[in-house]
Amino acid sequence: MTCLLAKERDRADLRLTMGGMKMSQLTSLFEPQAVAVIGASNKAGKLGHTVIRNLIECGYPGRIYPVNPGAQTVLGYPAYPSIEAVPGPVDLAVIVIPAPGVVEVARRCGEKGVRYLVVITAGFKEIGSEGSKRERDLAAVCQRYGMGLVGPNCLGIIDTHTPLNVTFAPRMPRRGNIAFFSQSGALGAAILDWSVAVDLGFSRFVSLGNKAGLDEVDFIAAAATDPKTEVILCYLENISDGARFVHTAREVTREKPIIVIKSGVSQAGARAASSHTGALAGSDVAYETAFRQCGVFRAESMEELFDLALAFAGQPLPRGKRVAVVTNAGGPGILASDAIELNGLEMARFTKETTEGLRASLPPEASIYNPVDVLGDAMPERYAVALEYVARDANVDSILVLLTPQAGTMPEETARLMIETHRRYPDKVMAAALMGGETVERATVALKQAGIPAYFAPERAVAAVAGLTRYAGFRRGAARRQDGLTFAGLKPETVEEVFRKVRQDRRVILLGHEAAAVVEAYGVPCAATRLATGPEEAVAAAHTVGFPVVLKVASPQIVHKTDVGGVKVGLKTPEAVYRGYLDILESVHRHLPQAEVYGVEVQRMMPPGIELIVGVTRDLQFGPLLMFGLGGIYVDLLRDVSFRLTHGLSREEVKEMV
Amino acid sequence: MTCLLAKERDRADLRLTMGGMKMSQLTSLFEPQAVAVIGASNKAGKLGHTVIRNLIECGYPGRIYPVNPGAQTVLGYPAYPSIEAVPGPVDLAVIVIPAPGVVEVARRCGEKGVRYLVVITAGFKEIGSEGSKRERDLAAVCQRYGMGLVGPNCLGIIDTHTPLNVTFAPRMPRRGNIAFFSQSGALGAAILDWSVAVDLGFSRFVSLGNKAGLDEVDFIAAAATDPKTEVILCYLENISDGARFVHTAREVTREKPIIVIKSGVSQAGARAASSHTGALAGSDVAYETAFRQCGVFRAESMEELFDLALAFAGQPLPRGKRVAVVTNAGGPGILASDAIELNGLEMARFTKETTEGLRASLPPEASIYNPVDVLGDAMPERYAVALEYVARDANVDSILVLLTPQAGTMPEETARLMIETHRRYPDKVMAAALMGGETVERATVALKQAGIPAYFAPERAVAAVAGLTRYAGFRRGAARRQDGLTFAGLKPETVEEVFRKVRQDRRVILLGHEAAAVVEAYGVPCAATRLATGPEEAVAAAHTVGFPVVLKVASPQIVHKTDVGGVKVGLKTPEAVYRGYLDILESVHRHLPQAEVYGVEVQRMMPPGIELIVGVTRDLQFGPLLMFGLGGIYVDLLRDVSFRLTHGLSREEVKEMV
Repeated sequence: MTCLLAKERDRADLRLTMGGMKMSQLTSLFEPQAVAVIGASNKAGKLGHTVIRNLIECGYPGRIYPVNPGAQTVLGYPAYPSIEAVPGPVDLAVIVIPAPGVVEVARRCGEKGVRYLVVITAGFKEIGSEGSKRERDLAAVCQRYGMGLVGPNCLGIIDTHTPLNVTFAPRMPRRGNIAFFSQSGALGAAILDWSVAVDLGFSRFVSLGNKAGLDEVDFIAAAATDPKTEVILCYLENISDGARFVHTAREVTREKPIIVIKSGVSQAGARAASSHTGALAGSDVAYETAFRQCGVFRAESMEELFDLALAFAGQPLPRGKRVAVVTNAGGPGILASDAIELNGLEMARFTKETTEGLRASLPPEASIYNPVDVLGDAMPERYAVALEYVARDANVDSILVLLTPQAGTMPEETARLMIETHRRYPDKVMAAALMGGETVERATVALKQAGIPAYFAPERAVAAVAGLTRYAGFRRGAARRQDGLTFAGLKPETVEEVFRKVRQDRRVILLGHEAAAVVEAYGVPCAATRLATGPEEAVAAAHTVGFPVVLKVASPQIVHKTDVGGVKVGLKTPEAVYRGYLDILESVHRHLPQAEVYGVEVQRMMPPGIELIVGVTRDLQFGPLLMFGLGGIYVDLLRDVSFRLTHGLSREEVKEMV
Repeated sequence: MTCLLAKERDRADLRLTMGGMKMSQLTSLFEPQAVAVIGASNKAGKLGHTVIRNLIECGYPGRIYPVNPGAQTVLGYPAYPSIEAVPGPVDLAVIVIPAPGVVEVARRCGEKGVRYLVVITAGFKEIGSEGSKRERDLAAVCQRYGMGLVGPNCLGIIDTHTPLNVTFAPRMPRRGNIAFFSQSGALGAAILDWSVAVDLGFSRFVSLGNKAGLDEVDFIAAAATDPKTEVILCYLENISDGARFVHTAREVTREKPIIVIKSGVSQAGARAASSHTGALAGSDVAYETAFRQCGVFRAESMEELFDLALAFAGQPLPRGKRVAVVTNAGGPGILASDAIELNGLEMARFTKETTEGLRASLPPEASIYNPVDVLGDAMPERYAVALEYVARDANVDSILVLLTPQAGTMPEETARLMIETHRRYPDKVMAAALMGGETVERATVALKQAGIPAYFAPERAVAAVAGLTRYAGFRRGAARRQDGLTFAGLKPETVEEVFRKVRQDRRVILLGHEAAAVVEAYGVPCAATRLATGPEEAVAAAHTVGFPVVLKVASPQIVHKTDVGGVKVGLKTPEAVYRGYLDILESVHRHLPQAEVYGVEVQRMMPPGIELIVGVTRDLQFGPLLMFGLGGIYVDLLRDVSFRLTHGLSREEVKEMV
């Protein structure tokens, strides 16, 4: 192990390039050679005791240094009065002393050459201004010495493969391939506790705390290159740097799924969140858009988060959305068919070979079409025969097995044969709903241990298959995707000129002809528009753009032009334009004598079409957010609009949006 | 017990009046004095063996008569060669012999005076035409002798209070106050098995089978008057008689909640259902409408069905939608706040007394506003203090308690104090999310046993509270409701006259002026409309209805009138009307020379308003289905329409719809 650690250590400084950004693998954090626990205590019930006991009991193979000026030993390990007194180098220092001493201790850790700090101590940003200052000081110290910082105000971190447990959580999770990063320590602890009961294994667990140093993006990036991690889960209350998140997540989801539960979506939730960790919740539409666009799953509930995790942790990605159902009871088969359709999947249509094979092998009363009903008296062998035919069928991407305990049903043996079939056809997704209590308990455990997600309710099994299918679709799309947009024939001078004029006038609204000039400079065809400052000029402009024309008053103070008689449509003759110009000026003057009028815009009138709306808003956390949809009166009525973040937006994504 | 049974028996023939229909309490079915099992067997593994063993082992207190011509005794009970040979009267005969003999045995049961049959045997409607005939014969025999029939092709029935178990299910559920009626036997068995593991108790369980005799409506009606039943659950693939269901369910839900999971909602599901029990699935919108209108909950999944059941079985109905959250961790509190808002509930705003009381009793770092955060180190007493203040608050209708296991958390003792608080404030709903595994297992069991629904995920607890709140709202609405609509000044002669003419012409479309006449006969104001058969008549009609007018061609063959030049709007003078009449006839003749033209309808032109659509379709299972919504181009675009079944529709409901 020491040997392995030494090898890993060589890689510790290897910096990854992830979407152009340098990220660390955090090797010395998750696989440190030596850990100091500053504030380690012999007194049961104290956090400093729980942390070092967890570290010892998890079987950590590196060196353990308790730091406590008042003790000779802690739990049998020689204790040191300070971090300076520790004899060898220290990769990771865990700090559990009271808040007032933390910054000074961190500084000493920096002097000592410690590479990472996990600050469990609370009493920082979450308690108000005094704590905020302390947190800034802590972050500054860490930056000065180049130390990576987890927390403060956190539960600690776990790596089950090292193994390393420097948390005060009551329970070490099982070893597995799921990394879980939680912005709530208590929720994290609850889930570790629960995970043992439902046979879910983790590779890493990190309580993010106040995120003064390392944040979710750092841990996601590190998990992406961690060979022990296949699935990444996050509980987040906010995202510190939206642009960085999007940048990284887009890359990571090409390789590994990220499933996020983001709380604070409602107004009530956001209020609760801000009184909690002071997390500044961004607009939910921006989060929603960001997640969708980077292929991040957003789970609606804790349950969905872990249902998906279970499926992703053990199953391949399906090639398509065609699902076969094998059941020993009709009712659940119908529930599953319903759920398959509602989740956007399809019931597979079997090949002739499959239906003929099933007909030859199953009793005459059995249903040989999808859902395949092997009947209530089905023994494991009958399930196995049906599964074999279905798994072999090229029209089947995923297989859902339903089992209800009936007279003669043998759940465990059936599970064993399911596992065998899955091993023979590893590229087909297999999921199960074992609808019973104690009777199916051992079969459920066996399936989960073999990587086949097993649930009670068919609907949950279907939702999990749907999740895999959706992610597979995203991955295929991402593989084709070329990031970034280019504009041929862009004329930056024109755009600069327009905005220079607007800024000069101290306006925040572009006039119509200005907007037209900008849009045209980007190569978007636009109804020809000219600004006229007198009736003759308007007639000349009308000749240039071509009849019929529309006249619109040009004034930065007038947005709703029709209301003040500032618009004339369908003018077909020079006379009408001349007269229209004068009418507009008169009417506008009557309605708004103070308005500053630049003149009248003369625009070629276009034939009727579909009115669209394109908009951009700048989100606090994610940056520019593009909107596209049906315009006119439909905007407010239908809300048929689509959002995308502009970071690295590709041509394909824009097409999708349209 | 025999004494009790005898007393109950006196009530057996008491017929209830439920929405004007006579319903039986089915007392002799669920609390029979003597049960015969026809086909009882000594051979383990045979259905006839499992059924009688279940009957004996459940502790049934009445007389048991095994009927089997080949045996002297069955499981120690004297066996009889035929039902005629049984010495005393028999309330209930359970039939488990092969299908071909069932009808004859049923006839003999009729002769013997048996009151109810439970036919477990399969081989009826579900196997095709031969089986269908057998099923019709069986139903006819039962009708002739006035025997109530459960099945055929079912798992049997259970009453945990009698106790009675004549099923071949592997497990008897715990005693409880939930009645469960399932159209899938296997699903029923699976749920009985699972219910034991999750501590859910049932009063009655019925496997409905093919529903040749008694159906869901009979069992719902009987459960309504069963003092042991508080909540009614159904798994349904179809509803046999929609009108009867609506009639009964409307009455029952005024007293007891009905929660239904209706499968076959999707096209795929409906196909699977029809290959399963040949259930003719009605249109889903009719089901959806029927359920909503009778206050029946439709669960979206098995899990929701039982989550709701758990809440309804133990909790009062809340007076409003204001929820207080008490938690020992911030993250889960935020998740709960989100869920509360998303489920249409409200975060309660505490009175000053409450916040002051909390401030005085909790540590300074605690959050005293909703969600109340009692902090991670909260011992049971701190929870109890917070719960006391919150439960006492008049602004709180429901209380949600969240607990994550942290250092020092004592889940069991906390649960005990929660139960005490709930006993002191029994009119406030209490629900819990205990977020952990083994650590919170015993606390979860204790809460459930005390009637406090406890879940792992906060979202599920919130959904359960939302269900209670929604039902409470329905109950309050139902109490105010007066069923039925009346029309003042209805002129039936006019309506009859119009339809007589339409029938005479063998038409299926009403012309505009006919529709106007019918609508006016019901007292609905309508733009005045006259039919004119010549240009002079049109002018006269225009004078009668008043200018300006609209002209529309009247022809049963022309529905899209505008397309053939059959409409003229905004005619203001007699000349325009005269000319318009001729133009329309000419244009229509040019476009559709074969069309039979009755003339032109002259209608007063109305000022612009909101275009609405009202429609009626006749659903196969539920009868007339009324539609109301935004009309014109919006119908297809927005689908902003509302549906109601017309059975017993009240004025309040119509107002709601509008």
